[in-house]
Amino acid sequence: MAIEELKILTALLPELKPDASVPVGPGDDCAVLKFPGASGVELLAAVDQLARDVHYTSDTPPELAGAKLLKRNLSDIAAMGGAPRWALLTVAAGGRDAEWVLRFCRGVAACAEEYGVVLTGGDLAGLCADTEVATLTILGEVPAGKAVLRSGARPGDAVYVTGEIGNSFASRHHLAFAPRLAEGRFLRGRARAMLDVSDGVLLDARRMARASEVDIKIDASRIPLRAGAALPGALSDGEDYELLFAAPDGLENMWPEELAKLTRIGEVLPGSGRIVDRDGNEYPARRSGYEH
Amino acid sequence: MAIEELKILTALLPELKPDASVPVGPGDDCAVLKFPGASGVELLAAVDQLARDVHYTSDTPPELAGAKLLKRNLSDIAAMGGAPRWALLTVAAGGRDAEWVLRFCRGVAACAEEYGVVLTGGDLAGLCADTEVATLTILGEVPAGKAVLRSGARPGDAVYVTGEIGNSFASRHHLAFAPRLAEGRFLRGRARAMLDVSDGVLLDARRMARASEVDIKIDASRIPLRAGAALPGALSDGEDYELLFAAPDGLENMWPEELAKLTRIGEVLPGSGRIVDRDGNEYPARRSGYEH
Repeated sequence: MAIEELKILTALLPELKPDASVPVGPGDDCAVLKFPGASGVELLAAVDQLARDVHYTSDTPPELAGAKLLKRNLSDIAAMGGAPRWALLTVAAGGRDAEWVLRFCRGVAACAEEYGVVLTGGDLAGLCADTEVATLTILGEVPAGKAVLRSGARPGDAVYVTGEIGNSFASRHHLAFAPRLAEGRFLRGRARAMLDVSDGVLLDARRMARASEVDIKIDASRIPLRAGAALPGALSDGEDYELLFAAPDGLENMWPEELAKLTRIGEVLPGSGRIVDRDGNEYPARRSGYEH
Repeated sequence: MAIEELKILTALLPELKPDASVPVGPGDDCAVLKFPGASGVELLAAVDQLARDVHYTSDTPPELAGAKLLKRNLSDIAAMGGAPRWALLTVAAGGRDAEWVLRFCRGVAACAEEYGVVLTGGDLAGLCADTEVATLTILGEVPAGKAVLRSGARPGDAVYVTGEIGNSFASRHHLAFAPRLAEGRFLRGRARAMLDVSDGVLLDARRMARASEVDIKIDASRIPLRAGAALPGALSDGEDYELLFAAPDGLENMWPEELAKLTRIGEVLPGSGRIVDRDGNEYPARRSGYEH
């Protein structure tokens, strides 16, 4: 039931007017907003959805689904190098009882407490269909001008990924993952471009390459595979929620060992948004990732 | 397909911990947030949902449905005495083509431009059912400590409502209304308690009475009825999106004539959350409004 997100956004986004209060608008992991009267700190804002049979199945424990919704958003804050502060939650549900919805909300609330996020509001609604969809809006902060965008990669930078990639569904990593907030904060001021891997390394690397107007070479043999994962699927299955970033070569030498495993998987080349393998052959632009 | 919102919230809200960064949390029209480094200004945040067959019908022009979603949120900002700044949008849709979703989003975007709101992000998703639900998160600002809450009504205050009440669906007011932003700003520092009338005058007055720990007397004969509206339904049909507020008696004498019509409809009495008619008889607590 795809709704042709790309087609809609391609039509809509150019119609939106830029505004001085929004240094970073739609198209990055979070928007960056200049709050009046605040100097030295900028507001981060992002929203994400979680729908049954897309992001979890009917028999997923609702607490885990709720926590996943918040962690997806925390991963977006991490990818900007920011810190999360507040969240707003909505649930629209049909064909579920109040107990399911309450357990879902408690999953969000428990996860919020774990990560120091304050749940400040929300809305619950009925839906005239046997399904449900929830949204979470995350608000956070980042030192002014220091958010790590997708657009700063430069030829010669190394490309890194945290943690492991692939087999997220079968391993239940897509429910159990920890958002890479500490890694994101460490990378603020160190990474030149960053995003979180939600739709597969290849598709997300392409987003960085296009935003940065460079090519990116990915050496698939270096991809740190999760147990049970195999190439080439691991590059496009998605739901990894790891950080993919470009930084000056040698970052691995200063990487704190208490953080998630770091792997250098490629490099930034002059170019125009292509992803190439270690032999320089282009990965096809289509079917290289799943848009969740 | 109600999901027993009240039952869920009654269980969930006491479990949420208060936080010094959130002077006003769940339960008012917007949350009030203290943004780090910002002095003199507080952040307002609210989220609302719009679902097919609940807030509009299948044949409602999508542009009007989109604008309604934003205006519902602007009405929440108005009810705090605030000014809107930014919005984030989500749409989850099944059984609609990309054209419908694009027209819906354009309705939001055009309305945002009209009200000086910057659309800064969002998310589009498919839904495995023939329905759709959209959410909008509104972010705004209010001078620090000046947000008008539901809880400030005092015995002796007069109770007022802006505009007209009732017959919102048949008249299409529920799509055509203008959020009372100018009225809300004028009332900042003047109204002691305020909310917007989304679920009917009686239910929303009861919310104010409970939050303020007072009784409120409503003189139904004074309710300014919209053409085609009739009592008692007009008091409970909802979707009026007018401001209901308590203020010191005599506010009508300083009301700027360029603002929406103002009508005094009652007064605040000592009490504990009851709504009474002009003879002092209590309106029943159930079935006095529709929770949208």
